[in-house]
Parts: sequence; structure tokens; C-alpha cells
Amino acid sequence: MSDINKVVLAYSGGLDTSVIVRWLQDTYQCEVVTFTADIGQGEEVEPARAKAKALGVQEIYIDDLREEYVRDFVYPMFRANAIYEGEYLLGTSIARPLIAKRLIEIANETGADAISHGATGKGNDQVRFELGAYSLKPGIKVIAPWREWDLTSRETLMAYCAERNIPVDFAGKKKKSPYSMDANLLHISYEGGNLEDPFWEAEEDMWRWSVSPEAAPDTPTYIEIGYQNGDPVTLNGEALSPATMLTTLNKLGGDNGIGRLDLVENRYVGMKSRGCYETPGGTIMLRAHRAIESITLDREAAHLKDELMPRYAKLIYNGYWFSPERRMLQAAIDESQGFVNGVVRLKLYKGNVVVVGRKSDNSLFDEAIATFEDDAGAYDQKDAEGFIKLNALRLRIAANKGRSQLS
Amino acid sequence: MSDINKVVLAYSGGLDTSVIVRWLQDTYQCEVVTFTADIGQGEEVEPARAKAKALGVQEIYIDDLREEYVRDFVYPMFRANAIYEGEYLLGTSIARPLIAKRLIEIANETGADAISHGATGKGNDQVRFELGAYSLKPGIKVIAPWREWDLTSRETLMAYCAERNIPVDFAGKKKKSPYSMDANLLHISYEGGNLEDPFWEAEEDMWRWSVSPEAAPDTPTYIEIGYQNGDPVTLNGEALSPATMLTTLNKLGGDNGIGRLDLVENRYVGMKSRGCYETPGGTIMLRAHRAIESITLDREAAHLKDELMPRYAKLIYNGYWFSPERRMLQAAIDESQGFVNGVVRLKLYKGNVVVVGRKSDNSLFDEAIATFEDDAGAYDQKDAEGFIKLNALRLRIAANKGRSQLS
Amino acid sequence: MSDINKVVLAYSGGLDTSVIVRWLQDTYQCEVVTFTADIGQGEEVEPARAKAKALGVQEIYIDDLREEYVRDFVYPMFRANAIYEGEYLLGTSIARPLIAKRLIEIANETGADAISHGATGKGNDQVRFELGAYSLKPGIKVIAPWREWDLTSRETLMAYCAERNIPVDFAGKKKKSPYSMDANLLHISYEGGNLEDPFWEAEEDMWRWSVSPEAAPDTPTYIEIGYQNGDPVTLNGEALSPATMLTTLNKLGGDNGIGRLDLVENRYVGMKSRGCYETPGGTIMLRAHRAIESITLDREAAHLKDELMPRYAKLIYNGYWFSPERRMLQAAIDESQGFVNGVVRLKLYKGNVVVVGRKSDNSLFDEAIATFEDDAGAYDQKDAEGFIKLNALRLRIAANKGRSQLS
Amino acid sequence: MSDINKVVLAYSGGLDTSVIVRWLQDTYQCEVVTFTADIGQGEEVEPARAKAKALGVQEIYIDDLREEYVRDFVYPMFRANAIYEGEYLLGTSIARPLIAKRLIEIANETGADAISHGATGKGNDQVRFELGAYSLKPGIKVIAPWREWDLTSRETLMAYCAERNIPVDFAGKKKKSPYSMDANLLHISYEGGNLEDPFWEAEEDMWRWSVSPEAAPDTPTYIEIGYQNGDPVTLNGEALSPATMLTTLNKLGGDNGIGRLDLVENRYVGMKSRGCYETPGGTIMLRAHRAIESITLDREAAHLKDELMPRYAKLIYNGYWFSPERRMLQAAIDESQGFVNGVVRLKLYKGNVVVVGRKSDNSLFDEAIATFEDDAGAYDQKDAEGFIKLNALRLRIAANKGRSQLS
Repeated sequence: MSDINKVVLAYSGGLDTSVIVRWLQDTYQCEVVTFTADIGQGEEVEPARAKAKALGVQEIYIDDLREEYVRDFVYPMFRANAIYEGEYLLGTSIARPLIAKRLIEIANETGADAISHGATGKGNDQVRFELGAYSLKPGIKVIAPWREWDLTSRETLMAYCAERNIPVDFAGKKKKSPYSMDANLLHISYEGGNLEDPFWEAEEDMWRWSVSPEAAPDTPTYIEIGYQNGDPVTLNGEALSPATMLTTLNKLGGDNGIGRLDLVENRYVGMKSRGCYETPGGTIMLRAHRAIESITLDREAAHLKDELMPRYAKLIYNGYWFSPERRMLQAAIDESQGFVNGVVRLKLYKGNVVVVGRKSDNSLFDEAIATFEDDAGAYDQKDAEGFIKLNALRLRIAANKGRSQLS
Repeated sequence: MSDINKVVLAYSGGLDTSVIVRWLQDTYQCEVVTFTADIGQGEEVEPARAKAKALGVQEIYIDDLREEYVRDFVYPMFRANAIYEGEYLLGTSIARPLIAKRLIEIANETGADAISHGATGKGNDQVRFELGAYSLKPGIKVIAPWREWDLTSRETLMAYCAERNIPVDFAGKKKKSPYSMDANLLHISYEGGNLEDPFWEAEEDMWRWSVSPEAAPDTPTYIEIGYQNGDPVTLNGEALSPATMLTTLNKLGGDNGIGRLDLVENRYVGMKSRGCYETPGGTIMLRAHRAIESITLDREAAHLKDELMPRYAKLIYNGYWFSPERRMLQAAIDESQGFVNGVVRLKLYKGNVVVVGRKSDNSLFDEAIATFEDDAGAYDQKDAEGFIKLNALRLRIAANKGRSQLS
Repeated sequence: MSDINKVVLAYSGGLDTSVIVRWLQDTYQCEVVTFTADIGQGEEVEPARAKAKALGVQEIYIDDLREEYVRDFVYPMFRANAIYEGEYLLGTSIARPLIAKRLIEIANETGADAISHGATGKGNDQVRFELGAYSLKPGIKVIAPWREWDLTSRETLMAYCAERNIPVDFAGKKKKSPYSMDANLLHISYEGGNLEDPFWEAEEDMWRWSVSPEAAPDTPTYIEIGYQNGDPVTLNGEALSPATMLTTLNKLGGDNGIGRLDLVENRYVGMKSRGCYETPGGTIMLRAHRAIESITLDREAAHLKDELMPRYAKLIYNGYWFSPERRMLQAAIDESQGFVNGVVRLKLYKGNVVVVGRKSDNSLFDEAIATFEDDAGAYDQKDAEGFIKLNALRLRIAANKGRSQLS
Repeated sequence: MSDINKVVLAYSGGLDTSVIVRWLQDTYQCEVVTFTADIGQGEEVEPARAKAKALGVQEIYIDDLREEYVRDFVYPMFRANAIYEGEYLLGTSIARPLIAKRLIEIANETGADAISHGATGKGNDQVRFELGAYSLKPGIKVIAPWREWDLTSRETLMAYCAERNIPVDFAGKKKKSPYSMDANLLHISYEGGNLEDPFWEAEEDMWRWSVSPEAAPDTPTYIEIGYQNGDPVTLNGEALSPATMLTTLNKLGGDNGIGRLDLVENRYVGMKSRGCYETPGGTIMLRAHRAIESITLDREAAHLKDELMPRYAKLIYNGYWFSPERRMLQAAIDESQGFVNGVVRLKLYKGNVVVVGRKSDNSLFDEAIATFEDDAGAYDQKDAEGFIKLNALRLRIAANKGRSQLS
């Protein structure tokens, strides 16, 4: 295993990845470069520097990637109204390719020949990290300690720490939860523990980003989101950068009990898994984007998007962000967004995101035609007869030939 | 126009269709058969008998179709998790083919050569009625008065009533709303009036089937729905017939502020249209069905369903229930539902439908494999390396040949 | 009908459209502008000028659109490998939007308020012309004489000519065929006559562009087509313009008995129709394009294209070239073509187009990996085990829970 | 490795699988059961018995699976018009699940705990065998010697034979080809050797099942295939069993130079691979099935089939025959075939399969409507105006709002 000289590790500063630093040094006799990113997980990243130094790391990268994350990953995905399996807003999935990209950039800068991460061998994240990495640098080596080592229980891990003098307080606050959690600007997730029984209701104190609908204010909050080319650009009339927009919507959503999800999903590696998620801002953005599309998007463009969406969401879930097929779908989606401009008015109330208004200079809603009142000839109702007759023709011919459509 | 001898009219007993009875008699010099169905619209149907008699109708059909409606139309559609344009639960659309079917059956029984309905020339319902009718009886004639006559304003209509002695109190209570409304067991819809401005927020007293989230109880209601082959069969352990199930869920949902929708949709005839809908029971059923599928359905079956769903929903929206392509999709969907059995536990609270548990003897959720704890060898994490490597192979080859996946 | 002042007519110079000129002048009391295009139909277009003049037309447009046709319509379509209903290469469909576009441009230039064409009310072409026209100029009026007039038999038409002094020799050579024919650079089509019996074999002398396979040379012709970004750019090493490329391939294909099709297709207006087609160059281009893609396109990009193709082909067949949804699909397709460069070697022989070689600097075919010989470690066969194991996991879990995949 | 007691091997009787018998006995100290199937590969299977006995095998299965193969695998697949990547008729892919099924049945009968096969670690067949096996018996163990052993060159293999007294004449005739070949009733395939250069033209003497178009008769052969529920049941009026049908069509096709393919395909394991195939009967069946569908299938059913087909073909190519998603698609496809009855007339000539006629009692081709002649009112051309107008409405509204569909 001496063929690895330098490895870039996605380093959180927590206990697990700190153990990985040491394990990599020991096992591969290689130099470790740490990379810690602020993608909005809600924890300070700067403390990771001292921890890495204490572990003997000499090249330490700490980046604030929040704007890039929302602008180049979250926003393009929301143009697609992406939802995985009818429920999941892909909060973890969409953060992984950015990490993979940055790992590879750092590998290129530092001359590293490998990357490493702290994802387990049962999950989707290993796939997302590694597919992204291989797609961007095909010769890169990948070290996935959880697939290799024997530190598979808390006990063996702690013993390893004691033996190697890894300060156990690296574990940090996060680990006091009985759940495996992960967060970034789009969401926080919870897995494991009691959630492994799908009939068990998550207890209230698990949730961290939102109040419960019960605890949310008794009066609604109204907001207006302005869209440009399919992306949210203003909130209540004020221009906000992508990361600021999402941060603000997270606060608004969380305060109003919005964005909790409890579901069983199908992992790419083949098993079902229970997950709970809080996606307050994303939940608002999804409804708002559909609402602005509802008045600005052509019908068939909208339907085509809807038919492509599950496939697009699956690609992102499975880790294929950096793939030709994701780029093809993105090209189709982006082609549709040029007129997705305007304002959506929303009411936030105790877990509900209610669309109460939408307007746009590019609206295709034509009151003159849609009206129940006299439309002054804008639409000739007699056209409908021919429309129906010809659409029915194939069905009538079939019926004439004796075919029944009753089961 | 003397080539029509007898026409079967979808008759509500309201003013508009009463006018149509007289107009058909006058215009076509034909006999009119009325057909009034209870599909759960929440109004008595029996009074239509006296009104029809008063108009000189001799063949009067009044049917309770609620069970057939839910069993043969609503339930099969919910197996597909059908939503049109990401929001609309197709509450009007799915009722129309049943009416069309019954019109044709009555035409066959009474020897009528035509059918008629009160849908306008701008909407989807004319299409749904007529496509259904043509598909089931290709030689049937269709009379759509709203596309033919000149009674296009309230004034001309009232003048017609006065002239022909049609009692104006046929108008009934429903017409006191400023909105065009339509209801059946799955939903009630509102269109027109102020809703024609998509930025205008619907006022609270428009809604008829649900209290507002604000007015809903401060304590949640928990329920358990039992599924068999993809259909809801028990509520809190009690077996319920399809119509009783939906009626009960409507009550539960409506009491908890669940199921309101406000959207702009794309009609088949080509324009956008604002609609508000209340679908209390359907909103619960959709979440519950997805939840029971989440533990019982194979991943790829679920994904295939998700990809086919928009097309299936569009077919129903557009009026193609009685078509070979809908039957093909239904065959695929139904094939997937054999193991969709089990119980979903839901929390209803102020507009929220929260899935809090799901269990099934046919569950594919495998705790032994999914666990974050030691799985005793049920899953070999090392398999993931090969899985990723081969999935990445095409991407690595492309990258080796100089292709970049960065935009 | 006096609300039409000037109408632009798609004018072939043949008898039918000459009658239409006079009929428009008579019926609408309007000025007629004729537009005659050379899109490779194989007949002189210049003679149309004298004929139009003889009919009193003052604004006469005669355009050579062959290069635009192939470059902007045929080539983009072939990037998609478009085939309608598994057989038809869309030779008529793809020419119609160009005609529609030019009609509208001329209407804009001449201040005309209407366009007209000679397509019948039963066919697809009326739809394609009119959808294109409406999409480009929504207020344009459309006059479709075949849907309006009563000159529906050859006799009434001839009587009309006699009455109005329309020279019958306008009929030209083409009408001596018992078939309704139409041609452009991509194909020639035959409909009607004996073809209306789908069990009747088309006789040899119907076909005009190709020799029969029987009559083709006994020795094969080898050619090499060079591709750039998915478009054919060289033939046997020589750069050719789009129209020249297609003209040359038509000759090569026709000489070798290539490109005949005999099929029953489903028209957009609802009936089935028998058509025979000759598409010599297109048949070669389709095989060649797939062949160059086979070594240069990523697998998943290729599969996505294959899944989108039927929908893309249907859009073109139905006349939706100028639509948002076609543009979305085109964006996805074009995104995939950046590396579709290289050379395909083909053998043309008695109706067969045989791909015998393909090469590309952008080839993704990796001999080091694909080889049956020792690959020197380029591919680790052990990876396959994990790949299979995880892909099988969901199936194994299902089987463990007692599900059988035997019917 | 002592945990294997008995293994069922897919045994051809050739040298490679004979080596595997011995290697399994040596390596796993287990009993080997051989299974040899006649699936129409064109070689005697009975000789495998003596060879297996000579190797000490005590349980020997030799089955004629030809009828089951065509009836239960080939025919259902052809109902879908399945083609992989636009060219490949899936001749190898569709045979694998049957072998997997039989291996598992024998494992159940003999109490074996493992299966084994001779497919390499680079190909698709290992995936197809193993996915099938895991899906049918999730606890089965799979031994894939080519992924495990070190006999990776001809030399080491021969040395192994010498050492273990395996008669080298087991190699048989087939290995005299420089190509890796595989055959069953649907096709024969060639890979490797010079074919690894995709620009190299396969030489004439590689092909074994068909004459070249050049060498085929100068006069065409006409045949008529009769269909019932989408399956071919008669040839020239004579009822033929599935296997007899395919055998006969292979002969007819091969004699007329039909069914050769030369392509580069994308393997599931991630690399591109050159393959040549002869599928004489399948090529005829594909054209014939599309032809009978062209007159008997509803348009939208046909289009839905076309859109689902690439996915269905991919599932089979990738080895997912025994999967819920393949069964769902099959249910949709089979639902559409109830009226696919009738007769197709074909002309076979020097590589060409020409459809020259189709007829059916269930034909939807309606001459009265399709005719270019007077249709006596069967179709009202005026309906087309309304049809076009409403289909254009959304496009016109968009254009009115200033949107251009020109790029």
C-alpha cells in the first residue's frame, strides 16, 4: 500500500474524520491534506485548522463554498423541480459533487494521488463522492476507510483514539444525538437509531432546524419571492445572493414549522433506508418555483420537464452530477427557463407553504381567453368540436371495429 | 337538425341544465332523457326528478354511483400516485369518464341517438365527456349547447327562462357563490370571478369543504390506513367500502384544514386557468399510498411508476380514460401493486398530513442490512468498491480521452 | 370574407395551386402573393414565375432554400436519429416548418394578413403549415382551400379551370402518376391509388428516385462520411455543403437501390395511412450517424437520446418544430454532439447500407479495456462481483421476502 | 472455501467449461453438477454427457429448451420490438435468463448451494446469469472462475489441462475461429480478434449462419407470416411451433443474406465493445411484427410502446429479465397485443426484408376515411380547422406575448 504518497481528505474536524487522518498516515504512510468546507452545515469550520495541525497535517484547506454551492448546484437543480421518489428534496445528494470537485482541485494543486472521505460502505455518499472524483480525474485513487478498516464499532474506534492519542473531544457536540446527522445549507438529515423502525415516530427533540407546526406562530408570514430565469433573486423586493436567499428562507421556513420530512427511500446501493429531513428553504423554493412556472411556462415544456424530472432527480441522487446525461437534461431544463420571471406571493403558516399569488411580465395566463365572462371573440368555442372530433377519431375507428375500452 | 330523436342529458337539476332540457326540446324537437348521478357532490339528487318531470321529461335516471366511482376510477388512479402538473389531484377529471360511460349505457337502454352535457366550449370537461362517449359508442351524436347557442350571458339566459317558463329557483343554493364550482366525492373546485387574477388571494369564505389551517383544532388527529393491493381498505382497523373510506377521509381532512390547493393549470384546449380545489381525503390518500409503497415497492418499480406518472395523469386530465394507452399504463401500474399491503400511520394537523409510521408483512425494509450498527455480514461493504468502479468506468474513460464534465 | 387583403400562397406552379390562386382572388377579393421554393423537389421552380404572372400575381417569390433546409432542419433532426413509428424518416414533416417560416417572412415583408396552402383537410401537412405559421405570427389568418371549397373531385376542378381560363397544362408531368407524390431533398413520397390497399405490393414503376435492389450494380460501392459535431461534413475526404452532401448521398443511395420504404403510419389527424417513401441519402445518414455515435457517445447519453427520440420524432411529425418542447429536446440532443466527430466507412450494395468501419479521435472505444487478450490491469475483473452483488441486492431482498419473479 | 458442497455448472462440453469442472472440484473440494442445454446453438448437446462423466461428474443434466426459449423469452421480447442502441436484437441477452432459471431449478433439485458459469469478468453475461440467479434464489452462491483464477492466458490454461489430464480435444471445432463466438436459436455472435479494431471490416468467412447478400439468390423469396396476439403462429399458412418458426425463418433469412450486423455497443460493465451478429429469423420477425402492428395497433398505444422500448431493451441487455420493472413493462406491452392478429407478406432478397403487404380482420386502417377519393362524409375536413386552432392556441398566446421560436 506504499503506492499512495499524498491523499486529500474531506475533513469535518469531527472525531471520525480525525481518526481517518491518523489511520491514513499509519496505514498508507502518506501525507494527508485536509479539506474542510463551509457549505452551510451550521458549524464553524475554522476550528478544523487547529485540529488538523494537531494531527500533523501540513496542507490545510478551509473554504467557504456557500455561494458556489447554492448558485451552481442548488439553483440549477431547483429549476428542474427535482424530487426523488415523490418526497425527498435531495439535500445531501446535491452537496456531494461540489465536495468531490473541490477534493480533485486540491489534489491537482497539491500533487496528491488520492482522495479519501468518511462515508460508509452502505450509503449513497461514497458513490457520489467517488463518481464525481473519477469523472473529474479518472486516474485518482480513492481510499474509503469505512470499507477497509476494522474500526467498525464505537469501542474499537475509541480504543484506536486512545492508542494514538487522538483527543476524544474532537467528537464535538453533534455526536450527542443518537442519530447520524448531516447538514448543509439545503437541509439537515437524520438516520439510524430508533428511525430504523419505520413505524416509530420521530420524537420532537430530534429536529434541529425547525420548530414543530404546533410551536410555530399563530399568525401567518407572507413573503414574495422574485424570479429571474428560473432562479430566486429577490425576497420581498430585496435582491439577495443565492446563499443569503437560502439562508433567509431556511430561517423563515424553520420559524414556521416548514420543511420536515419523514420517509423511507431506496438507496443506490440497493437497500431501503429511513431518513428524516428538514429542508425549510428548499420546501418554500420548490413550491414557489412551480408557481412562477405555472404562469410563465408553456404547457408542453412544463409537461416535458415533469416527465424528465424523476430521471434527473435519480441521476443526482445516484451521484451522476458530473455526467453527460445530467448535462443533457440540464440543457433541456435551462432552455425552458428564459421566461421564468416574476413574483410569487406565499403564505407560511404552521408547516404550510401556501401559494396565494403569482404575477409576471412574461405571464402566459391570458385573462381575455380564460375568462368565464364574454371573451369578445378571443376564443372560438366552435373550434373545440373539431378538436375533440379529430382527437377521438382513432378511438371511434377502434370502437367501430369492435374494440371495447371497458376492462 | 331533425335527425336527433332522443338525447340523454347529464342533468344536475340546476338552472343551466334545466335550460338545456328546454333548449334541446325546442331546438332539436327531440325527446330528452335526463341522467342525474350522485357521485358525492354533496347535494340531493332526488329533487332532480320533480324538476325534470316539470320540464316534460319522461325518462328520468337517477343513480347513486359513489361506490363505483371510488372503486373503479378513484382507486385505480391513486395506485399511480397521479398528480397533474405537480399539484392537481385530478378531482374533476376522474369523475368525467364515469358520467360518459353512464350516458352511453342509458343511450343504449333508451335507444337515444345523442348525448348532451352542460360543459362550456372553453374547458376540459367537454373533451372528457365526449372522448369517453365516442370511445364507448363511436356513432353517438353529441350536443354541446354552450358551443352552439347564443345564451352566453346571464341576461340572455334569464330572458330565455322567462320566455319558456323555466322556474328560476332551479338555480339553487350553489349559484350564490361568485365562483363556478363543481364537486364530487374526490374534490370541490372553484374557478372564475376574482380568481381570474392569479395574484389575488382567495378569500376564506370561498372554501366550503375544509376549515382553514388557522381554524383547525390545536391538537393533532392520528389515523391508520390499511392497504391491500395498493387500495385503502381499513381506517383505524375498521374495513370501509371505497366510498365510505373517501367520505370519512374527507371529513377528517376537512376538519384538520387539509387539502386546499390554489394553482394555475394548463387546459387541454390550450389556455391557462386558475383553479382552487379542496381534496381533503385525496390529499391524505396520496401521502399514505406513497408511504406504504415506500416500504413495499421495489426501487425500480417505484422509479418506473414515477416516470410514467406524469403521462398517466395527463391522459386522465385530457380525457383519455377509455383509451388503449391508459389501459396499458394501468396494466403496468397494477402489476406493481400486488405486495402494496400494510398500514400507514398519519398525523393530521392544521393543514399538514405527516407520515409518522408504516409497517407491512410485505416490507422490503431490511433492518439487518440497513442498520448503522453491525449487520453481522448481511452486507459486504467491499462490494461497494466494485459497484462504484464499474459504474464509473465510462466516465473515467471519457475523462481519460480529455472530456470535461465541468460546464 | 372581405377582411383578407393580401394572402401569401405556397405555390408549386402546378395545377392545384394555380386553381387556388384564382379561387383566392375570386373568393376573398384579395391580392395573392406566390411563394415557390426549391427545396430539392427535383423540378424547376423558375417556370412558376410565368405561370403566376399569367394568373395576375404581382408579388412573386422564388427562393432556393436547399442549403438552409438541410443545414437548419434536416441536420438537426438527424442528430436525434429521428424515426417515426420505427420506420419513417420524416421526409415530408421536416420540410414543412421551413415553408411555414418563409410564408410568414414574406407575409411580414409584403404586409399580407393571411397565408394559404394546397394541403388537404385529411392530412398532416395542413397541421404542420399552420402550427408553424401560428407559432411565428399568432395573428396570421390561414386559408386552407381544400377545407373550404367544393372542388373536391377532378371533374369539378377541371370545370373550374375551364370556366376561369386556367391552362390545364399547368398540371405538369408529375400528375401523370396515379399516386399523390411529394418530394424534397430528403425524400419523395407516394400515397393514394392502389396503395390504399395495404396488402397490395407497390409496382416497380412507381418508384422514381432509386433503382430496385435487383437492378442495382452487382458490385458494392464503398464510401466514407466524415462527421463534425454530429453533422456529416465530408464525403470520401471531400468537404461538402449540407445540400450538396444530401444530393450526393441521394444519388449514391438511389443508384444502389437504397432507401425505399413501404409502411402504414398513424396521422396526427387520427387515421392510418399507407405511404411509400424513397429516402436514399437519409437512409445512409441515419446508419452512419448511429455508427459514429457508437464510438464517440457516452452510453447513458446515447440511451437518453434513444428514449427521447420517439417523442422528438412525434413532435416533428405532428408539426411542432417551432415549439418550446422541440427546442428543449434539441438543446439536450445538441449538448451531446460535441464529440461526435470522425469517419464512418459504409458499403452500399443492392439496398443494403452496411457499416464496415468507424474511427474517431474522440473515440471512447478503449481497446486496452475491451480486449479479450490480457489487458495489463486496465480493468479489474474482481470489481464485477461487487457490481453485480449490489445491483442484485434489491432483488435478493425481495426474493428473501418471498416474492417470485416467475410469472 | 470449503463452504461449498455442490455446484451446478452451465456446461457446454467445450474445453473452457471442462477446465472449470476440474478447477471447481480441485478448488472447492465440491461436487459438480453439469447442465447442458440445447437452446439452438447448432451443436449436439448429447456428447457433453460423456465428457462430463469422464471428468467424474455424477449428476448430468442435458435439456432441450428450444421451445421454452422461443415461447417464453424470444416471443415476449419481440412483442416489444426490442432493439438495444438502435441496432442490436439482443440475441445473447435474452438467452441468459433461461439458463439462469434452469441452473437454479437444478440447484433446487440437487440440493446444490452454488452455481457457476464460464463467462468472463469483463462481459455482460456474468451479470445476466448472476442477476437472474440471485433474483430466483437469493441465497445461492455464485462462482465465476474467470474472475477468480489465474488461468488467464491460453498457455496457462493448456498447462492446467496437461497437469490435470483434461483431454484438449474437448476444445472442439468452434475454437478454430479466431473470434469468441456464441450462438442460440436467435443469433450467433462474434467478438474479439481483429474486430477489436472498429475500423476493420469483418472478413466474409467469419460469418457462419448467412450467405452474403452478394452470394444470395438473384430471385426474391416471398413469405407470409401469420400473427396471433402479437406472436408469429403461421408461415405461409402453416402453423409452426415457436422453435420451428424461428428455425425456419433463420434458414430463410440466412439463405437470402439477411440479418448480419456489425456494431459497437455499450456494455453494462462500462466499456464499449465491437460485436458482429447474425440474426436472420429475428430480423425478419422484427420487421413483420412492426408491420402487423402498423395496421392493428392504436396510434397512442404504438407510440407508448416506442417510448418504453429502449428502456425495456436496456433491462434485458443488462440482465434484469427477472425483475419487477421488466414485468411491469411486459404487462403494458402484452395489454396492447390482443388485436395484433393478421398476415404480413414479405419479400426476402439479398439482405433486404421488404414488407410488401399486411392484412388483418382487426385492421384499424379505414379505407373509407383514409382515401384520397371522395369519402362520402366519413371524415369532416372542417374539423381540422378547430383541431389545429386549439393545438396552436398555447403557441399563439406565447407569440402574442413576444416569445420567438426561432433560435
